[in-house]
Parts: sequence; C-alpha cells; structure tokens
Amino acid sequence: MSSYQQLVNHFEHISHLQHLQSICAWDGETMMPSGSAEQRSKAMAELDLVIHKASNKAEIKQWLAAAESEPLTELQASSLREMKRQIAIESALPESLVKAKRLAGSQCEHQWRSQRANNDWQGFKKNLKEVVKLSREEAQIRAQQQGLSPYDAMLDLYEPGMTTAELDKLFAELQTWLPELITQVQHKQANWHNDIDLRADIDLQHQLSLKVMSKLGFEFNLGRLDVSAHPFSGGVPTDLRITTHYHQSDFSSALFSTIHETGHACYEQYLPAAVAGLPAGLARSMAIHEGMSLFYEMQLGRDPLFLETLLPELNQTLNKQLSLQQLTQHLHKVSPSYIRIEADEVTYPAHIILRYQIEKAIIAGDVEVDDLPDLWQQLAQQLLGIDINGNHKLGVMQDIHWTDGSFGYFPSYTLGAMYAAQFKAAMAQQLEVTELIKAAELGPIFNWLKQNIWSKGSLLTTSELVIQATGEALNPKHFEQHLKARYL
Amino acid sequence: MSSYQQLVNHFEHISHLQHLQSICAWDGETMMPSGSAEQRSKAMAELDLVIHKASNKAEIKQWLAAAESEPLTELQASSLREMKRQIAIESALPESLVKAKRLAGSQCEHQWRSQRANNDWQGFKKNLKEVVKLSREEAQIRAQQQGLSPYDAMLDLYEPGMTTAELDKLFAELQTWLPELITQVQHKQANWHNDIDLRADIDLQHQLSLKVMSKLGFEFNLGRLDVSAHPFSGGVPTDLRITTHYHQSDFSSALFSTIHETGHACYEQYLPAAVAGLPAGLARSMAIHEGMSLFYEMQLGRDPLFLETLLPELNQTLNKQLSLQQLTQHLHKVSPSYIRIEADEVTYPAHIILRYQIEKAIIAGDVEVDDLPDLWQQLAQQLLGIDINGNHKLGVMQDIHWTDGSFGYFPSYTLGAMYAAQFKAAMAQQLEVTELIKAAELGPIFNWLKQNIWSKGSLLTTSELVIQATGEALNPKHFEQHLKARYL
Repeated sequence: MSSYQQLVNHFEHISHLQHLQSICAWDGETMMPSGSAEQRSKAMAELDLVIHKASNKAEIKQWLAAAESEPLTELQASSLREMKRQIAIESALPESLVKAKRLAGSQCEHQWRSQRANNDWQGFKKNLKEVVKLSREEAQIRAQQQGLSPYDAMLDLYEPGMTTAELDKLFAELQTWLPELITQVQHKQANWHNDIDLRADIDLQHQLSLKVMSKLGFEFNLGRLDVSAHPFSGGVPTDLRITTHYHQSDFSSALFSTIHETGHACYEQYLPAAVAGLPAGLARSMAIHEGMSLFYEMQLGRDPLFLETLLPELNQTLNKQLSLQQLTQHLHKVSPSYIRIEADEVTYPAHIILRYQIEKAIIAGDVEVDDLPDLWQQLAQQLLGIDINGNHKLGVMQDIHWTDGSFGYFPSYTLGAMYAAQFKAAMAQQLEVTELIKAAELGPIFNWLKQNIWSKGSLLTTSELVIQATGEALNPKHFEQHLKARYL
Repeated sequence: MSSYQQLVNHFEHISHLQHLQSICAWDGETMMPSGSAEQRSKAMAELDLVIHKASNKAEIKQWLAAAESEPLTELQASSLREMKRQIAIESALPESLVKAKRLAGSQCEHQWRSQRANNDWQGFKKNLKEVVKLSREEAQIRAQQQGLSPYDAMLDLYEPGMTTAELDKLFAELQTWLPELITQVQHKQANWHNDIDLRADIDLQHQLSLKVMSKLGFEFNLGRLDVSAHPFSGGVPTDLRITTHYHQSDFSSALFSTIHETGHACYEQYLPAAVAGLPAGLARSMAIHEGMSLFYEMQLGRDPLFLETLLPELNQTLNKQLSLQQLTQHLHKVSPSYIRIEADEVTYPAHIILRYQIEKAIIAGDVEVDDLPDLWQQLAQQLLGIDINGNHKLGVMQDIHWTDGSFGYFPSYTLGAMYAAQFKAAMAQQLEVTELIKAAELGPIFNWLKQNIWSKGSLLTTSELVIQATGEALNPKHFEQHLKARYL
C-alpha cells in the first residue's frame, strides 16, 4: 500500500470517529436530558482522547515524508498538502500544553456561563488569565514552527494564509467609510416605525423554517432541523444537524437563524465526495464558511426581492398581514448595540474590529487581562459610540470564544461578510441574479455556489478559490457597495 | 495502582465509549435522516473496532490473574467475578470467527428486511446457513472452554447459569397446563365484544405516554421518550432513551409499548452507582430485564386495578368514553396468532417453546436450515393450533434474532414472564400490593423492585438474586397462578 493510501486510511478512521463525536455533540445540545451532562462529558473526553492518540500515532510523519515522493494526481497532491497542514497543526504542541489548555479552557468556559450572568469579572478574570497564558505559549510555539508572528500563527488555524498585515489594511479601509455610513443610515431610518407585531406560534414558525430550508436547497434526507439554546450547524456532510431557537415574540429571529445555518449546511452537504473524510474534503476556512451563511442570510435572505417572494407564504403560514415595507424595515434596522450576536449587518464589523484589536494586543503581550475592561470601554466608545459602564456581560464577558482560547477566530466573521458580498457581485457578472431572485428561481444561484465554492472543499487554497470564483483576490469594495446600496 | 483498579479503569474507558455508541445507535433509529445510513454504519463499525481492540488488550488477563490475589471488599470481589465472566466471553473466540460472524450476521439481517417482506425463504436460507455454521462453531468453542453443551454455552451469554436441563423441565411443566388454559380462556372469551373504538390522535397519545411514564417512576432528567419503527430501550443509565410507535387506529399498542420499555428503563436508571461502568453494574440478565418490562406491562399495566386508576386520565387525555370493561376485554383478549411480538400473554410462551425447540436442535446439529419451515409448521400446529401454510414471513422468517446468530436468546422472554410473576407474588407477601395499586400509590412497589432487583445490578448471581428477593429459586407456579387468576 502506498504511503498516500496509508494516510487516506488513517484520516478516514479519524473521520468516522469524528462522525459519532459530531452526532453526540449535537445530541448534547438538543436531545440530552440535563441529568446526563456529567457522564456525557466524561464519555466525550474519552473519545476525544482516542482520536487525539490516533491523530498522533508514530507512523504518520513517515507516511507523509514518503508520500511526498510518490506519483500523485493533482487531486491527491492537493489532498496531501492539506493532510500535511492538518498534521502540522495537530502535532505542533507538546502533550502537556494540549492537556493544560483543554483543562483551563473547559473550566473557564464552564464557569463563564454563570459568571457572565452575575457580571462577575473578578471571578472570570482568574480563569481567563490562565487561558491567555497558555494561548500565548501556543502562539509562540506555532509562530516559531511556521516563521510567523504569534498572532498570525493563531489566525492561520482558522484562516490559512491570512495575516495581521492584510487584516490591518482591510479593517483600516473599512474604517474610512463605516463610521460615516452608520451615522447616515441612522439618520435615514430615524422615522422608521417599530411597532410591527412579529409574534407567532412556535409550531407555525417551525413549519415556516422547514419550508424556507427546502426553498434554500437543504436536503432533508441528509440532515434535519431541531432546537437548541443557541443556533448552530453540526453533524457531518451526509447528516447535517442544524438548529434554531424560536421566540414567540418575534418570528424573524428564528427564521434568520435558520437561513444562516442553512447556508453553513448547504456548504457541508456539497463538499467534494472524492476526498470525503480527508482534510481536503473539509470546508476551506471559517471565513469562507461564514461567507456561505452570510450569503444566505444577508445577501439573499434579507434582500427585499427575496423577502417579497417569501412574504405570501410567510403571512399564510404564520397567519399574519405584514407588508413588505414593514418586514424590510424591521430586518434592515441599523442601531449600534452592545451585543455582537444581536448586531445588524452594518454595525457588526465594528464589533469585530474591536475584538481584533484586543486579541492581537493580548497575544502580542501588549495588554494584560486586567486591562481588558478599560480597553473594551474605550474601543466601544470609539467604534460604536456606546458606553459599557462596568456592565461586563455587555462588554468583555459577552463572547464564548476567548474562554477556551480561540484567539484569532473573530476576524472570520467580517471576512465572511466580505466574501459573501464579493461572491454575490461575481455571480451577478454571470447570472441575472436580480431576475432569478425576483422569480424565486434560486437553482442557478445555488449551482454557482456549488461549482465555485462548495465542491472545491479545501482542494484550493483560499486565495486560489476566491480568485478562481471571482476573478480577483479578497476585495472589501464589494462589501462597501453592498451596504451602501442596501442601506443608503 | 492495584490490578483491580487497572481493571476498573479499563472497563470505565470501554463504558465511556459504549455510552456514545448507545446514543448513536438510538439516534440511528430515531433521528438520523435516511441518506446517512451508509456513512453512519461505517462510523459505527469503526468505533466497534476501537472498542473491540481495547477490550482485548494484552494486559487484561495479567490484571485479572493478579487481582485474584489482591485484598478485595465483598463488592469488589463480586465486581471481579463479573469482569472475569465478561473477559472470558469477549476473548473466547478467534478474531477471524468474530469478524466472519459479524459480517455474515450483518448481511443476513440486512437482506432479511426485504426478504421477509417478499416471503423469500430461498434467498434468506442461503444467508442463514452461513450464520448457523458460524454460530455452531462459536457454540463449540464456548462449550469446550466452559465445560457445557454447545447450546448451554450460548444460553449462558444471555442467561448466565441457565441450562437446557432446567429449561426442558420448566417448559415441560408449562406444557402440562398451558394448552388446556388457552382452550378454556378462548371459550370464556367467545362472546367478548371487539367493536371498541381505540382511535386516538397521535399527539394526544404522546401526552398520555409521558404522563404514564411519570406515574411509573421514569426520571425525565435522566432520559426521554421518542418514536421508532420498533419500540426499544436504549441509551445509558444516566440517559435512558426509550421509544414507542404510535398507531392512530389503536392507542393501546403505543401505550403498552411505552409501559413495557419504561420497565426496562427504570431497571437501568437504578442500577448500582457504586459499580457504574463496570460489568457488575450492568443488568443481571436478559430474563431479569424482561422480567422488569413484563412486571410493568403485564403484572402492573394490564391489571384491571391499575387500569381503573388510569382510566379517567386516559379518557380525558384521549377524549374518549371507554369503560373499564371495554378496555380490559381489549387488553386481555387471548387468541393464538402467527406473530410472536403481537401475541397475548397466554399464548406467548407457546411461541417461545417453539423457537427453543428449534434452536436447541439447530445448535446441536440435529436439524438443518433446510428443515426449518417444516419443523416450524409442525410445532406451530402442535403448540398453537395454527397453520403457516408456506407463509414464511408469518413463520420462520418473522424474527430478527437468528439473522445475526443470537441463538439462546428466546427463552429469556418466557423466563422473564415467570420472574415477573414470582416477584409480584413475593412483593405481595411484604406489601399490600392490591391496596397500593387501587390507591395509585405505586412508590412502595417501585421501592421493592429498587431494593431487591434494580440496585443489585450483577453483584449477585441470578439465582442468588432471585432467592434473596423471593425466598425461592425460579418457580413457574407463580406464572401459572397469575395467568389462571387473570384469565379464568
């Protein structure tokens, strides 16, 4: 057996175990009764350990070295490149650091859930300090191995190839027009009504979610929709488990969560079967993933043309009498706010830039955990014009990401918004996108995504993928044009 | 670390992985979309292999030998005895036979699903022959290692300590009164009406199932009820996943499936925590397990006194106007029929004796697969007075058990019915069972089961368990008395 084939078998073995891990993780958020949490977390830790051991078995590096000189097809060569990347990531850290970070992260995340509710910064700070210390160690080690700066080495985990230099440039460019845009949009929307009745029965909301998922190309023989406290997309490509969360007082929250998660799911459902179970068969990056969910939610879902086609069924299913204007004004309302996950499309990037500035400085060692509340207060004032006023649960304690040391993840959200706008613009060069949306003929739009993004998995690098799909590298102008066209 | 503790760690490791295996198996029957079946079965096979390898690792037999001479508490000694038993079972067969049997069983079971529907005995026979051949090999090897006859060695997998000699005696005793009882009961019931309307909305049936589970002591923070094609009890003690199957035309089918599975679940929920995850923490045997589900379903659930307490809520929930007599006559109707799983309490043992006679002869090599339809026809005539007439799906092809070579399992059902009756009789010596049921005060009844059966797990042998709980060894007289009291 060739060394390449040995690697294939190895990754398929891991992937099968990860399949069950994904299903059980989904189960834990959707189905598991509360009394089983402790036993389940022990069971999950055990499988985690089995996977970790298998991922680091001694032969892998020999196979990798030998496979480099084996005759490979183009697809196999791409596949090998991604195997190499994944193995490098997995074997970079000493076992002791992996364990210490997992333990500190799990404790910090677990306690954060109650500390946040109690605005307990002093309690949270202690745990976060340990997570930051270990994350800095991780960043140092990865940086050395890859010849990158520590923060760039963390970024690379989520956005292979992305650098601080590029992000600084992208975000600086954004800052030249975003603050002014936010002011203008608020001015324009000053007289918008917000007395619209969005209440709807939860069963009816669920029916609507299922109908909309079908319209959006979700394959129900390869996945399902359920309910969890926080919407997510889980499972595996042949069995996508997305969730939403229904609020009786406002159907739009669950509906747009469903549309967002459907975007994630459709990407996964059409990843390349030829490299299924291998690293090259995974989604390209977190930003491209977010690009897909934001394409569904923002580029398509909140487009008034799409909303117009949805409105009769929405009103019929929910037994409502909304006009298109009422719905659009509700969904396009822009207003700086405290909480990132509740932010609108226009102010969202400001939340990300804030976090990016902070986490870059943390990993570089330029700021310490003790400094975070003041820094957050200052950046929130500057970027969003809001005052945290010591209310840490609306500030530095609001997100889960840092609790387990996922520094470097946040930029993916705004990169995703940029990619989504760029894909829509490129698509519009080849398809009559406006006419298709008006006619509710979404097939060609999904086919474009399938051909250009979904079916590529990680066979191309991110920049190859984006250039092949759109004719240019990441260009934030498309995002600017999208926001200005929609909101001004 | 003591060798005993090494064994504890080993079994806990396996048990954590089995936890996830159980949840995913449940998911496959209740939640999984159809398109994921192939990938899921590969993933399950991979975890199966991981568990199999871990179960057979080299050090285990050394630990076992060393633990024998370590100072152990009484509980640890019992625990060690069960570890020994389980390791002996798991390591008895050569790897090649385990694999061959798994493969042949999986193919036979898979094809049986469509072959049964098509009454395709010729197709099924080919696969079954391979399964029988490998099961005979298994029985031979186990027999030699344990100094038992081949069929007794298979019996021992499900009913440790049970023998053909004892079963022959028990079933012969049953046959002295059962045929006459069946005739008498049918005569008595000749004028019973069967025009009762049992239709009920499925949502209402589900609500009723949940209410009844609560009454029966099911802990919903440690489990849940869902729907599957065939009702089962799965999951783990801290997370019991039971299922039922609703039929719009007759609510009683789902309701009594729910009650039956609740009996299995309550046993699992109260297994001894001190040996959780270890072999001694598992349910004692298949017959004791079935004893619990049949206690719930038959001894308690179909008791007119219990039905009377249930009736107001049942009528209210389902929006019906049933009288106790109508309900009881429906639930106590006795009639020899083709299908075991649809059989009533009185004719059920005849189905089991039929299968016992056949599988004993198969494993002994006294009959061959080709002979089975004729043998089934003859025994069905003799024991149930029914004619299969070449309709194999109503005869030899109706059950799943033999498809994967689970020879030796069937007697557990009737042993379970006997245990259930014996436990009820013993309980009645200590509690005012009749008064408690009448007053819908079931707590003391469940406490009796908890103290005498559930909390013992496998710390006692089956005969120790039964003698401690009831003051005597298995005695089929209690089952006879129960049936005669209820049906004559």
